[in-house]
Amino acid sequence: MVGLAVLGAGRIGKIHGRNAALHPKAKLVSVSDPHGPSADALAAETGAAVRSLEEAVTAPDIDAVLICTPTTTHADLIERAARAGKAAFCEKPVDLSSERIRTCLAVVEQAGTPLMIGFNRRFDPNFGALKRRIAEGAIGAVELVSIISRDPSPPPASYIATSGGLFRDMMIHDLDLARFLLEEDPVEVHAVGSSLVDPEIGRAGDVDTAAVLLKTASGKICQITNSRRATYGYDQRIEVHGQKGMIRAHNVPRTTVELATSAGLLADPVQDFFLERYADAYRAEMTAFVDAVTGGAAPSPSGQDGLKAQILADAATESARTGQAVRV
Amino acid sequence: MVGLAVLGAGRIGKIHGRNAALHPKAKLVSVSDPHGPSADALAAETGAAVRSLEEAVTAPDIDAVLICTPTTTHADLIERAARAGKAAFCEKPVDLSSERIRTCLAVVEQAGTPLMIGFNRRFDPNFGALKRRIAEGAIGAVELVSIISRDPSPPPASYIATSGGLFRDMMIHDLDLARFLLEEDPVEVHAVGSSLVDPEIGRAGDVDTAAVLLKTASGKICQITNSRRATYGYDQRIEVHGQKGMIRAHNVPRTTVELATSAGLLADPVQDFFLERYADAYRAEMTAFVDAVTGGAAPSPSGQDGLKAQILADAATESARTGQAVRV
Amino acid sequence: MVGLAVLGAGRIGKIHGRNAALHPKAKLVSVSDPHGPSADALAAETGAAVRSLEEAVTAPDIDAVLICTPTTTHADLIERAARAGKAAFCEKPVDLSSERIRTCLAVVEQAGTPLMIGFNRRFDPNFGALKRRIAEGAIGAVELVSIISRDPSPPPASYIATSGGLFRDMMIHDLDLARFLLEEDPVEVHAVGSSLVDPEIGRAGDVDTAAVLLKTASGKICQITNSRRATYGYDQRIEVHGQKGMIRAHNVPRTTVELATSAGLLADPVQDFFLERYADAYRAEMTAFVDAVTGGAAPSPSGQDGLKAQILADAATESARTGQAVRV
Amino acid sequence: MVGLAVLGAGRIGKIHGRNAALHPKAKLVSVSDPHGPSADALAAETGAAVRSLEEAVTAPDIDAVLICTPTTTHADLIERAARAGKAAFCEKPVDLSSERIRTCLAVVEQAGTPLMIGFNRRFDPNFGALKRRIAEGAIGAVELVSIISRDPSPPPASYIATSGGLFRDMMIHDLDLARFLLEEDPVEVHAVGSSLVDPEIGRAGDVDTAAVLLKTASGKICQITNSRRATYGYDQRIEVHGQKGMIRAHNVPRTTVELATSAGLLADPVQDFFLERYADAYRAEMTAFVDAVTGGAAPSPSGQDGLKAQILADAATESARTGQAVRV
Repeated sequence: MVGLAVLGAGRIGKIHGRNAALHPKAKLVSVSDPHGPSADALAAETGAAVRSLEEAVTAPDIDAVLICTPTTTHADLIERAARAGKAAFCEKPVDLSSERIRTCLAVVEQAGTPLMIGFNRRFDPNFGALKRRIAEGAIGAVELVSIISRDPSPPPASYIATSGGLFRDMMIHDLDLARFLLEEDPVEVHAVGSSLVDPEIGRAGDVDTAAVLLKTASGKICQITNSRRATYGYDQRIEVHGQKGMIRAHNVPRTTVELATSAGLLADPVQDFFLERYADAYRAEMTAFVDAVTGGAAPSPSGQDGLKAQILADAATESARTGQAVRV
Repeated sequence: MVGLAVLGAGRIGKIHGRNAALHPKAKLVSVSDPHGPSADALAAETGAAVRSLEEAVTAPDIDAVLICTPTTTHADLIERAARAGKAAFCEKPVDLSSERIRTCLAVVEQAGTPLMIGFNRRFDPNFGALKRRIAEGAIGAVELVSIISRDPSPPPASYIATSGGLFRDMMIHDLDLARFLLEEDPVEVHAVGSSLVDPEIGRAGDVDTAAVLLKTASGKICQITNSRRATYGYDQRIEVHGQKGMIRAHNVPRTTVELATSAGLLADPVQDFFLERYADAYRAEMTAFVDAVTGGAAPSPSGQDGLKAQILADAATESARTGQAVRV
Repeated sequence: MVGLAVLGAGRIGKIHGRNAALHPKAKLVSVSDPHGPSADALAAETGAAVRSLEEAVTAPDIDAVLICTPTTTHADLIERAARAGKAAFCEKPVDLSSERIRTCLAVVEQAGTPLMIGFNRRFDPNFGALKRRIAEGAIGAVELVSIISRDPSPPPASYIATSGGLFRDMMIHDLDLARFLLEEDPVEVHAVGSSLVDPEIGRAGDVDTAAVLLKTASGKICQITNSRRATYGYDQRIEVHGQKGMIRAHNVPRTTVELATSAGLLADPVQDFFLERYADAYRAEMTAFVDAVTGGAAPSPSGQDGLKAQILADAATESARTGQAVRV
Repeated sequence: MVGLAVLGAGRIGKIHGRNAALHPKAKLVSVSDPHGPSADALAAETGAAVRSLEEAVTAPDIDAVLICTPTTTHADLIERAARAGKAAFCEKPVDLSSERIRTCLAVVEQAGTPLMIGFNRRFDPNFGALKRRIAEGAIGAVELVSIISRDPSPPPASYIATSGGLFRDMMIHDLDLARFLLEEDPVEVHAVGSSLVDPEIGRAGDVDTAAVLLKTASGKICQITNSRRATYGYDQRIEVHGQKGMIRAHNVPRTTVELATSAGLLADPVQDFFLERYADAYRAEMTAFVDAVTGGAAPSPSGQDGLKAQILADAATESARTGQAVRV
């Protein structure tokens, strides 16, 4: 049994805390959150104790920490966990600064502790099946990857200011998926962005609609589109073209019901919230982390994966700002 | 909190026992099964006690029993629960004899205790959404209902002998759905059946491929097809035509992945096991039962629903045997 | 070049006349219709001459006649063509009386002239592809056939009186398709029918909503549903289950456009008129007839196919009327 | 009746010549082609005369010419037709040099004769319905356009040398569609290209796999992908996201047949040749041209549309070559 401490009991902390508590090979030992009632509630629900962050990171009954605190604290907590000899699972992003991520990863490397980054979409059963079938050769060598990700609605403008911008906050998931599917690092990044959904976002200096074009050294191409608006549910699609075929993962409809009238054939909207869409992914992610901690294999996605996605997000941010391509 | 006792710890008993144990308004108090290890295992997993059937049905901390024992014991256990003043949830069918069901329901009626029959498909989220939208008027008055139900593979021939035959064992679910969707009782039953999947089934005097045509007094029509073979997963579909449109519920695919090659566009097979396909339905069914027991509303589907589906199954069995239509 | 005379220049006569005129191996020589302006218009459009029926059937430059006149004249014209040594293509049905069809086919047999019946759906590219793949073994031995046919709107009540009833007028197409796909003659016919669409149809003694269940000697099953109402276009579907799989032909949408909004994903209604849906089928049917006339192979569907579909339609009519199954 | 002369009787000349000959308001008067047998064959088939290019462009019975000759002759023939007072329909591109197009259009403008460019995809019924519904407000203001175009197989390497490169030869259709759907001119062009399909194409200095990102002054975004390989048929899709919804046009499947086996649900590949996929579009295009010539409205797409698409293709070519964005 792996002893786990969840740090942060907000929306994502609750998900990971519950999944940890239900995991057959793990025990959720403690919950930490500066906001007492949040920590108490999650602890009560899961049977864990409430501890301070400090206690949690160093306690002998803790094998690994689940870092679900605000972004600004991630790198510091990763380092403290590493120095205490604890494995760490950290929500994306490690930090908004690639430089800070680099120094953080150096600490982890020296400590030799496992670190896994929370790119949950890699664990989605649909995307996972797609990836597996590419690996099995279903479409031959990959040539072109297309990723669509559209949030149902924009975040509050207050959040934008500290978010690092759409490319670092939202598209980073897709940039990681791009690397995951291309199995090669992009070297050329083109990005365009606009504020079409919410003028507040534009006034805050960010974009809410964006597209990116990536090219790898061997010539593989990837395109990604993001929007803070999805009128028909949480739009999450992948399409990959290869030498022998194409494979794609569609959205998940709410039900399989279809209504046919003189207006046409109306299928249900797709699931519209990431907690519902990715519930299975979060569970599988926890299993992968627990397996890595107990089995000794290097966790994946790794800290390096976190860094490389961030570098691409930096490049996209710059490209969209300057109107020029960026080489990485 | 409703105190529940599960009677029978086999495949379906485990499902209901686990759902009962996880239900926020219920407590699984006891597990009974003549096969000790089965009872012990489910009790250990759910935190319930092991009790004899006799104890379970009469114990003061039990408000309701979940009857998941072999069919031949259902009517007797329903009666014992009723006489003990307990609510009962009983897996379909109440009995293979409509006469026996009638006497059983008379006992329940006299006792005034709640009785719910396990027609789980009414609680499937897809079928439920379809029913709800019909009720909202999406297709106007219902004219024609079409139900397809195909099991992935035939049961062992040994099971056939005591199953009551395909119409009572398998199609009874669809006959209940037919009544649920038609909202009117069929008065004319036409059935045909063949043994095309497994010759053993034919030798045992049963059929493995069948179709039924139902007509109600007001002229609504329903057709049902059943097969003990489904080559591409567990095939469970409904299509309803009305005055203003058509509504249908498709199968549930295993993933949303689609592969396009020179052979065409290949979507995943559908989910192939009823426990997976109807996992949500079983949970919703338990909630409906708990709500009925606590809220005082009459449970639905009721004992009368169980009887009426059985009468239709009897009629279909006779029609398929004689080659003649049967009026009910 | 095959010299063709079209008899009858109404809606269906125009289709066959135009297809004949455009066919590379055929020449539309003459058009006949008691209604002069109709004959004139079609003749002008196709470059054919106007002739009386009598002339057309016997003229030496005519190799084959296309009988597109009212049903009551079909059998007589087939006989006259046969006696004149001409091949004949005749729109379904040969006659509303099976007895009359038998005597007519005897005349044709004696004359030894080719006769083809206009069951156009056999020539639909979608249904044809489905049939071909079944023949190639894609689903193994056929077990269950399901046919759906729904007209966009009911015919005028005046037409009902002389139509022979829904089973002979409309379902006869599906009964022929059933034989085509089962490759075996049904021996047991169950039918139900209702008047749910237009009360006038019920008052005229006919039904507008119907379902049929067929069983062959070897145990294959077929179900057919018909309605004079299709709210979302002309509904024409086939689904066939076999030992190894299922194959189906969907409807043909008007366009491939799909609109996604908060209401869901809305695909276009299906094509809503038989002339549009079956335009390709009518062309292929003409080619098959011309090929049979020139190549010497027996035309298919044959006069016997016309008779057997009619016998099934008679049986269905009786079954729906009496509420009893009919053996054929 | 509009008197038409088709110039060039190759693959595309035959399509336009036949459509012209069948058009109810047009008469195909003459066919010209330096390759005598080609001209003779098309003339024989359509009932037109064979004329030299010179005669055709100036003859008094010719109202308009259909320019289907090699690209290098387009601009010259457009100018000659304009000077002779004839309307002209010209296949894309007007010329591989934007400068040459400009001088050509100046001649046309001075002559005041109608000129229409052959961007046939605007006339596809599916794309047309999509455009119409956007115009009707189905998705609100357009925000993001995505266009996919994949040819079934690469052209011979010999063709590449004179093609102008993928962006001018193939993507120009998509660049025109982008302008058609954005209803605004892109100002920023990002392109990447690779040679992944056929190394010969790479050696000839061209690409066979490419993606483009466009941004308009108001911030609308468009992405286009092209490949000289489409393993499952001719891949032609559009997806447009707007303020209120998304609308897309799927590919056209060869049939509506779907096969379900243990491998999954297999739909037919999509139509795999542009002549089949766009047959309706070519007919509608001819009608639009004839209507413009007879009705006096300015033809659309216009010469300016041809020029603007070419400018975007030039920019994309440069961007892919330099790895830098290009402003237009």
